[in-house]
Amino acid sequence: MPEIYREKHRVVYYETDVSGQISLGKLVDLLMLASYDQGKALGMSEEKLNEQGYGWVITQHLLEINRLPKRDEQITLETKATAYNRYFCYRDFAIYDLAGELLAKMHTAFVLLDLKTRKISRITEAVIAPFAPEAIKTIERLPSPGKLTTVDAKKEYQVRFWDIDTNHHVNNVHYIEWMLDALDADFLLNYEPVALNIKYEHELHYGDTCESKVQIIREPELITVHEIKKTDTLSCTAKVSWRPRQ
Amino acid sequence: MPEIYREKHRVVYYETDVSGQISLGKLVDLLMLASYDQGKALGMSEEKLNEQGYGWVITQHLLEINRLPKRDEQITLETKATAYNRYFCYRDFAIYDLAGELLAKMHTAFVLLDLKTRKISRITEAVIAPFAPEAIKTIERLPSPGKLTTVDAKKEYQVRFWDIDTNHHVNNVHYIEWMLDALDADFLLNYEPVALNIKYEHELHYGDTCESKVQIIREPELITVHEIKKTDTLSCTAKVSWRPRQ
Repeated sequence: MPEIYREKHRVVYYETDVSGQISLGKLVDLLMLASYDQGKALGMSEEKLNEQGYGWVITQHLLEINRLPKRDEQITLETKATAYNRYFCYRDFAIYDLAGELLAKMHTAFVLLDLKTRKISRITEAVIAPFAPEAIKTIERLPSPGKLTTVDAKKEYQVRFWDIDTNHHVNNVHYIEWMLDALDADFLLNYEPVALNIKYEHELHYGDTCESKVQIIREPELITVHEIKKTDTLSCTAKVSWRPRQ
Repeated sequence: MPEIYREKHRVVYYETDVSGQISLGKLVDLLMLASYDQGKALGMSEEKLNEQGYGWVITQHLLEINRLPKRDEQITLETKATAYNRYFCYRDFAIYDLAGELLAKMHTAFVLLDLKTRKISRITEAVIAPFAPEAIKTIERLPSPGKLTTVDAKKEYQVRFWDIDTNHHVNNVHYIEWMLDALDADFLLNYEPVALNIKYEHELHYGDTCESKVQIIREPELITVHEIKKTDTLSCTAKVSWRPRQ
């Protein structure tokens, strides 16, 4: 049975936007923290992995939101590594409020990056055993975020020093911020995200410039489709579902 | 005697840079959080102030750093409102490690912004009394960060949705990130900040574009002088002292 890890967190004001709700990027930051802390608690920390020349890298997040936590709200973060095959590790995340209500859940696919060759490495027993996921032979077929058919808005972003993480590339959370920021403030003030499917294709590095493009589909449901490209190289795609803020 | 407020915090990985030390922006975020939490604890929260049409705005920070806290380190944040006059409130901040060593201290000048007129408002007894600062007649003469005499590097930044705080302008912390990011990664990997004097002149809003310029002075000590301008309007100036990373 997979090891389950839980920790409490108080949402603080700089994790929220002007609506007082947590921003989508910070929400994913918190879930990534739970996974980082589990590694530490089980003796297989990110630092230890880095020393061995490896780092966990996200290939896809599938996030569903029932309610975004608010400024000063106490929440519980939960995670477990559910399964792994030769190259992928799959993880489930959940966020609960004080009453035990499920606020959000996320399913994430990780690969192990060789920090020297920048290539995907086979997952070794030593690295994965502490988390006790199920060993599987199959590769999960996760839904694709889809492609833009037209561009409704776009913005350019230059990678900053603080966008880079210990894997020496742009941290997965910053793509989410670039994607959503390409929508304008009116949109972001009127709607809140209920689902995110984000898929990472090619890493970006310090000093790179990329373009964040978005298509807004209003019928039958409000959906935005996103892509981030560095010149012609697709770095990341995503689909976000929205509802009016309550 | 001023009310003293303390809270504990664990520095988490997304608050640190690739060196494993907290970033200067996040360090100031944490201190601002302590001040926000004190307001809440004393019944004069930022939300309550916002409802009355006001918000606290920073005019200057003077920060001195003995040692930057590291990833996963437990620290204590401390703050008190030391004094106030007709228009300014002065606050002291400190960060201690588990052994009680002083890691950093900051002195900050605040003014009260009228959120409708966007003008500075006189500080009322009702707003300030819970913090019990000393009432003074004088205005503190804080040192000026100085001006650039030449430009060694510059970068452009566009204000993003998540740069905006409940005062509906760019939060003070983002200026620090724009200023330091205008230095390149080599500089930021080789040196760490030991002091910051940052002065805020004109607010920036959503969608604004600004230019962050920096001059690097190497003798007799390593100092950088910064300015952020929106076209011809000076938004913010700063001086940062550095030492080689240990």
